[in-house]
Amino acid sequence: MSDMIGLMAAALTTLSFLPQALMVIRTGRTDGISLIMYAMFTTGVAGWLVYGILLGSLPMIVANSVTLLLASMILALKVRHSLQAKAQAATFSTSAPIAS
Amino acid sequence: MSDMIGLMAAALTTLSFLPQALMVIRTGRTDGISLIMYAMFTTGVAGWLVYGILLGSLPMIVANSVTLLLASMILALKVRHSLQAKAQAATFSTSAPIAS
Repeated sequence: MSDMIGLMAAALTTLSFLPQALMVIRTGRTDGISLIMYAMFTTGVAGWLVYGILLGSLPMIVANSVTLLLASMILALKVRHSLQAKAQAATFSTSAPIAS
Repeated sequence: MSDMIGLMAAALTTLSFLPQALMVIRTGRTDGISLIMYAMFTTGVAGWLVYGILLGSLPMIVANSVTLLLASMILALKVRHSLQAKAQAATFSTSAPIAS
């Protein structure tokens, strides 16, 4: 009974996260995402997965594995974009005196 | 030990959800939200809360209570806006022949 409710909850929250996650991964657009908030979210989902394993809860293990996989891909994209933006900003600030 | 990990996970995922949720509630802007996806998410969180109560898991009860409260407020805003948009569309379509 409780596993049925857990699996229903897992299906609903995971499916509701899917379209937006897949769109971010497909388009590679991460500018609407906060790096700190997403790092917190991804670490939190990893924590829920470990907690689910410790409780032996199948719904928690399934839901958090899928979410962790997608969230990690999005976080990796976001980190890459943030580093690129930083590198670009550094190029601009060092080249500015030469250009002016 | 497992409760410590669960509480850490609860704090991280709930805190990462807070800024965006509070911004939506404060500004009342829900146009970036899909009604169906948010209804699924809110129902799913309610399911996780019931599942957490059945398991007697404090971290799940705390995290999902806070998230359910915020998600319900956002869903209510979204439903209100969707109904207003529908009413406005109906007004336009019936008034159009009179205006032209």
